[in-house]
Amino acid sequence: MFQAAELGRWLSKTDFEAELPSLRANLLQGQLSLMREAQQAVLVIIEGLDGSGRAELLNRLYAWLDPRGLKTHTFWDPSDEEQERPFFWRFWRSLPQKGSIAIHLGGWYRDLLTDAIHAKISDVELELALEKRRKLEEMLALEGITILKFWLYLPEKVQRERLSQEDDTPDDRWGNAGAKRALKSRPAFLNIAEQVMRLTDSAVAPWYLVEATDANYRDVTVGKTIANALLNAQQSHLRWMKEAENDFTRGGGAPNLPDSPTARRSLLDSVDLTLTTSKADYKKSFEQLRKELSALAWRAWRAKKTTLIVFEGWDAAGKGGAIRRLASALDARLYRAVSYGAPTEQEQGYPYLWRFWHELPRAGRVMMFDRSWYGRVLVERVEGFADHAVWSRAYHEINNFESELVESGVILIKFWLHISPDMQLQRFKERESTPYKQHKITDEDWRNREKWSAYEAAVNDMVFRTGTEVAPWTLISAEDKYTARLQVLSKVVERLKQALGD
Amino acid sequence: MFQAAELGRWLSKTDFEAELPSLRANLLQGQLSLMREAQQAVLVIIEGLDGSGRAELLNRLYAWLDPRGLKTHTFWDPSDEEQERPFFWRFWRSLPQKGSIAIHLGGWYRDLLTDAIHAKISDVELELALEKRRKLEEMLALEGITILKFWLYLPEKVQRERLSQEDDTPDDRWGNAGAKRALKSRPAFLNIAEQVMRLTDSAVAPWYLVEATDANYRDVTVGKTIANALLNAQQSHLRWMKEAENDFTRGGGAPNLPDSPTARRSLLDSVDLTLTTSKADYKKSFEQLRKELSALAWRAWRAKKTTLIVFEGWDAAGKGGAIRRLASALDARLYRAVSYGAPTEQEQGYPYLWRFWHELPRAGRVMMFDRSWYGRVLVERVEGFADHAVWSRAYHEINNFESELVESGVILIKFWLHISPDMQLQRFKERESTPYKQHKITDEDWRNREKWSAYEAAVNDMVFRTGTEVAPWTLISAEDKYTARLQVLSKVVERLKQALGD
Repeated sequence: MFQAAELGRWLSKTDFEAELPSLRANLLQGQLSLMREAQQAVLVIIEGLDGSGRAELLNRLYAWLDPRGLKTHTFWDPSDEEQERPFFWRFWRSLPQKGSIAIHLGGWYRDLLTDAIHAKISDVELELALEKRRKLEEMLALEGITILKFWLYLPEKVQRERLSQEDDTPDDRWGNAGAKRALKSRPAFLNIAEQVMRLTDSAVAPWYLVEATDANYRDVTVGKTIANALLNAQQSHLRWMKEAENDFTRGGGAPNLPDSPTARRSLLDSVDLTLTTSKADYKKSFEQLRKELSALAWRAWRAKKTTLIVFEGWDAAGKGGAIRRLASALDARLYRAVSYGAPTEQEQGYPYLWRFWHELPRAGRVMMFDRSWYGRVLVERVEGFADHAVWSRAYHEINNFESELVESGVILIKFWLHISPDMQLQRFKERESTPYKQHKITDEDWRNREKWSAYEAAVNDMVFRTGTEVAPWTLISAEDKYTARLQVLSKVVERLKQALGD
Repeated sequence: MFQAAELGRWLSKTDFEAELPSLRANLLQGQLSLMREAQQAVLVIIEGLDGSGRAELLNRLYAWLDPRGLKTHTFWDPSDEEQERPFFWRFWRSLPQKGSIAIHLGGWYRDLLTDAIHAKISDVELELALEKRRKLEEMLALEGITILKFWLYLPEKVQRERLSQEDDTPDDRWGNAGAKRALKSRPAFLNIAEQVMRLTDSAVAPWYLVEATDANYRDVTVGKTIANALLNAQQSHLRWMKEAENDFTRGGGAPNLPDSPTARRSLLDSVDLTLTTSKADYKKSFEQLRKELSALAWRAWRAKKTTLIVFEGWDAAGKGGAIRRLASALDARLYRAVSYGAPTEQEQGYPYLWRFWHELPRAGRVMMFDRSWYGRVLVERVEGFADHAVWSRAYHEINNFESELVESGVILIKFWLHISPDMQLQRFKERESTPYKQHKITDEDWRNREKWSAYEAAVNDMVFRTGTEVAPWTLISAEDKYTARLQVLSKVVERLKQALGD
């Protein structure tokens, strides 16, 4: 998930200054209409890594907004008064009244994160506590509070630099000792943070993951997202109340990115498509990996460890070829490869996940999926076969399904095979002109190609929202087929070794 | 909660035979349209106490429905095949296809109940596992499966009798030893069952608590509820998909009761309004209780135990009087009494629970609420101040709020003061003719009175759906004021003693 905030997004001084006038106008106008209507309140929760500049951001927001309609609450150690009441009392006391905005630094997530890092609460307790917060936010949203949650993220290197600098802001209450602690607990913190975001992200209280390396990018992104929410608060309130009051399963939002191209890099942009592998190198490495995999697969079988490998990717990205190469390393008694197209009539008679549940192999087997349950958030989304409400709830459903698999001991590996539009064109033409490949290219492939950018958005959302700690995505550089196949094979070998305790 | 299934509801042979023709016609017609449309499937989950006649009910359903569109699944010990897959695999395998009905005996609740009773899982694990099931059911519902869950209940005495009889049905796989075990674990089982029903009851997969003492009543109630769902399956499917797809917070349902008056007794009907107390007895007991309470309140203060006492009841049922008598036992520094009418303009600026959170006292105090957060599911529901979607989600919200209070150590006591319509009329007239009482009676009181039966339904729903293990309702017989006051006082004394470990 955090890969999505390691893209190097930034905003030059010129771009920043170009964004500013309309951003400030929108923020003020939005705030004004919020106050005038007084039907909706806005709650902004700011969380993130130490050093990510939460206090700096806050100061910017105060400069941009009208401070009269704005209150900030920091929840440090509870007072006597607060300790004598139920935990959530201090937060209820700090809710924004209709027409106003409240900013909670940390809010009802902070203590939980701290407790989880120090293992004061168990995994189940954490999950349950998060569920409580999700329900609370749902209720508050239905009662007229628009909730926005921002998570400020820094790559490790940047965080280290930041924390080594002298700093007197409230972000740095604990000085150098605090900085060291923050860096040491960073992996655990991020691990828990991911869970927090995944389990409490909802349409009415979305989490926005914000890359905080560049302050201008960070602040404009947050500012634009708030402005957008302010301008729509009234309207979305009405939408909720009247049309689809409790449509919580609409997925959470992507932040409103600034217009500059440096700010609009996506996850797919981070795949290096220039990699190549020579035929000789390929042959050597492939043979080596094939042997390793073959042995590992038998060990997994003895250990009753099931492996599911999902292949998604652009048309002509080489899914079939990768699957065949992988299969060549496996004993035919151990694996099965299944291909999923449009559901059959019988399959349509069941919930969409049924056909995948149905095919789950017995213990110890390897199963390869040529396309999978992700159809719902890719082709069904883009082609309009599924309504917005349907495909957007699928992210949560898929995450739950995959957790179920992983908890039962399954090794789940997911690949997205990435190529450029040019390479796709080249391969399509090759298919058309090669007799034994002609069956692989249809009018539909050409039609899909026209929707490249819609698919690109869908893939980015998918990778971001279903790339979880337990079931991460591996993006494969598939412009060169040899490179792609080796990347796939070595990832499978790596994951099997890991799972078998090597 | 289970009080609602101890009402002695039954159906005479004549009434049963009168219901049968239309019930069977509806079941078959509903099943036929389900098959014909093939857009929706129906999943019936049957749970309940041993001896409640689950197998007997099942046989009736097979006699009434067309068995060709019906499949029953019993989940005993998992097979080898099943053990090698994730837990839910066996249930996915047993889902009904569109156009058909599946009956799950126990289903995904049974193992959980068993594990919880034997303390194989902790409370948090149970809660989380229930949350998982709730989400699964939500998804299945959105994917076209109408889910009905029945819980068959027997009073203890009846269960004991039933289990002592020789019986060869599959209900009784374990013979006499099983019967003994079932009776021994009954309290634990019911405790967990309540949690199961509370946490997994939703609009799309409601639990129906069915009194199973009388077989005719039991089977007709279940049959009517299934018939109703079958006849509406198509329509409600469309409603969900089109209008308010994910409107899950609409509360679960009350079962469709047979028409006979013996089958329509409600919780309020179970309050004995004939009780009276002589003035002399009242004085003596009152003095005794007053002293006890006074001492207990100081002890609670020292123990930092906060007590919240909620008074709800009919107009003129004597809430004010009861609060004054209770207050007379308490040191003025220790208690506060607050009265809640329509929310002020400021209060309307926040979520509806805000004004109650806001007033929560410091540790060790007693607070009495003359009306409370239950306004939302009483006056706001009946008078239409809150939409259906709004008041029906309030049951869950209130349960969550009260859990939060109780978990933080609060002693929460809830009273409904019950009187007959005749007594209300008598007291209204008395108020009108007594100068110092005239301020207590308004036109609104007379208007409310006209909606007695709508309020009665709302009160029954409220008591049933928010009468939880941690925050039970006490129904007070308030026809006689002395009786009412003594009942209130002794309940408060009892609860404080309990909480202070006496």
